[in-house]
Amino acid sequence: MASESELIAALSEVFLLSDPNLIVGIGDDGAVIKASTKNLVAATDMAVEGVHFKREWSNLHDIGAKIAAANLADIFAMGGDPRYLLVSAGLTKDFGIAEIQELAQGIKSEADLVGAAIIGGDISRAEQLVISITALGEVVDPILRSGAKVGDQIYLSNLPGWSRAGLAILVKGLPIETDAAKRAVAAFRAPTLNYAYAVDLANATALSDVSDSLMTQSEQMAAASNVKFDLDFNLFKAAADFEELRTLSEELNVSVADLIFGGGEDHVFLATGEDLPGLLIGNVSAGNGLTVLGNEKAPDTWRHFD
Amino acid sequence: MASESELIAALSEVFLLSDPNLIVGIGDDGAVIKASTKNLVAATDMAVEGVHFKREWSNLHDIGAKIAAANLADIFAMGGDPRYLLVSAGLTKDFGIAEIQELAQGIKSEADLVGAAIIGGDISRAEQLVISITALGEVVDPILRSGAKVGDQIYLSNLPGWSRAGLAILVKGLPIETDAAKRAVAAFRAPTLNYAYAVDLANATALSDVSDSLMTQSEQMAAASNVKFDLDFNLFKAAADFEELRTLSEELNVSVADLIFGGGEDHVFLATGEDLPGLLIGNVSAGNGLTVLGNEKAPDTWRHFD
Repeated sequence: MASESELIAALSEVFLLSDPNLIVGIGDDGAVIKASTKNLVAATDMAVEGVHFKREWSNLHDIGAKIAAANLADIFAMGGDPRYLLVSAGLTKDFGIAEIQELAQGIKSEADLVGAAIIGGDISRAEQLVISITALGEVVDPILRSGAKVGDQIYLSNLPGWSRAGLAILVKGLPIETDAAKRAVAAFRAPTLNYAYAVDLANATALSDVSDSLMTQSEQMAAASNVKFDLDFNLFKAAADFEELRTLSEELNVSVADLIFGGGEDHVFLATGEDLPGLLIGNVSAGNGLTVLGNEKAPDTWRHFD
Repeated sequence: MASESELIAALSEVFLLSDPNLIVGIGDDGAVIKASTKNLVAATDMAVEGVHFKREWSNLHDIGAKIAAANLADIFAMGGDPRYLLVSAGLTKDFGIAEIQELAQGIKSEADLVGAAIIGGDISRAEQLVISITALGEVVDPILRSGAKVGDQIYLSNLPGWSRAGLAILVKGLPIETDAAKRAVAAFRAPTLNYAYAVDLANATALSDVSDSLMTQSEQMAAASNVKFDLDFNLFKAAADFEELRTLSEELNVSVADLIFGGGEDHVFLATGEDLPGLLIGNVSAGNGLTVLGNEKAPDTWRHFD
């Protein structure tokens, strides 16, 4: 295994940046960021090998991109603008310079999509690869989970379920030959987030990132807002990629509703409000809990794969 | 194992807080902190079971306190005032409500010492217990490692080596009976940091937290400042607890200089400047590298215990 100082040197090279607001970057006890007139928003996410990813299914670039995306999504889900990431990693014995650079490039490639920079971190040894990222951003008016109002419409940035379908393909060891199968596996390995969607949501009353499952996230948002979420499964069919996902679900012998409601690592955004962009999936009513019109059975909520 | 929602509820109870600057706390996608006129300082540290701690040697309260202390020390070492912590934890299967609360109480007890609050986090399963904390604080004029000037004096907040001695006692399975042995083991399990020292250092030219070893940290600070550090081993003898540590080192069959220069997890502060408080240990001169007057042999630098 490479020494800690060699690994840090390799990381610093990948994460090299010039940012006028960064007073102190990597290399001291902490990073220092110039005071902002905007509020600070902070979120943290940890990914553990065997729980959130497997290295036989995803390369290190994808693993890095996926955990970075999960963190960036949390900042957008608050109505914020992600600016900085701090990355801690517990590295297994096989990690050398090439491996740490591949992981770091994955994190950086995702951060670059939204103009965020990696400003600090920590490296340790570990028996399982574990990555913990903290994302820092700016926000003027945070959009909470608790703001949904009776009469609001409910929207998604995109149709969820692709990542869950990709996982099913990998678990079953199915061939990855059709465009749909390739798209699903790619979504599981490193989802393509619709960051622009969240930026356009200044009028949303409530906003969240669907990290667990649409079912769980809808229940949480309804409970936090003290309202009822009425989802209509037929509305999901308006998504341009619904039929492609349904065809794939049949090949996988799972219900498309299970993929849509029980998936989650696509990190689509769930929003409420009036006349928002995105896929309309239902309405907010008085009461509490969640109803799903037009769905045959309650979906199995997916909480990681073991 | 308790469910994630049960664990989060237990954590939220421990971390309950009211802070006028906290706009959004635990329970949404991210925490939101009111804009400050001061600069933001951020640092992150990860601790992995079997690498940084062993559960047969330390209880969960101590483990939580120690990793929190390491993070808080990083903020003080920048001349900052720690305000908030985000905590990610990969928990082993045996973790129930009692275990998570003990770990959380340890983190909170250390944060309470400096008025910092836990505002967010993430929980995962893991095969080894792993804790990653990000500390956020405020700073007006950061004190860097690179500011040491020729002619400065070099100071420590306290005599280091106690944590290393405690580790030696635990590794060798020696009795923990004398006051010195008890103090050393306690220092290893959860060091008592001299936070007040770092607060008094507005005139320091350079400042760092000794997390690896005094040797390593002195070399890094000298290199960052482009100067030479001349340490004088005889000056360490002025510390009130030097004789106690020396007696203990003899019982452990190690050199007291090895403990002092090769230890590090005491998280003492290393500072340069003129007429600073603390233990004077040397002077800054022109050149580069490190000399240690009065020391018989080069110490073995300690980098964790496996």
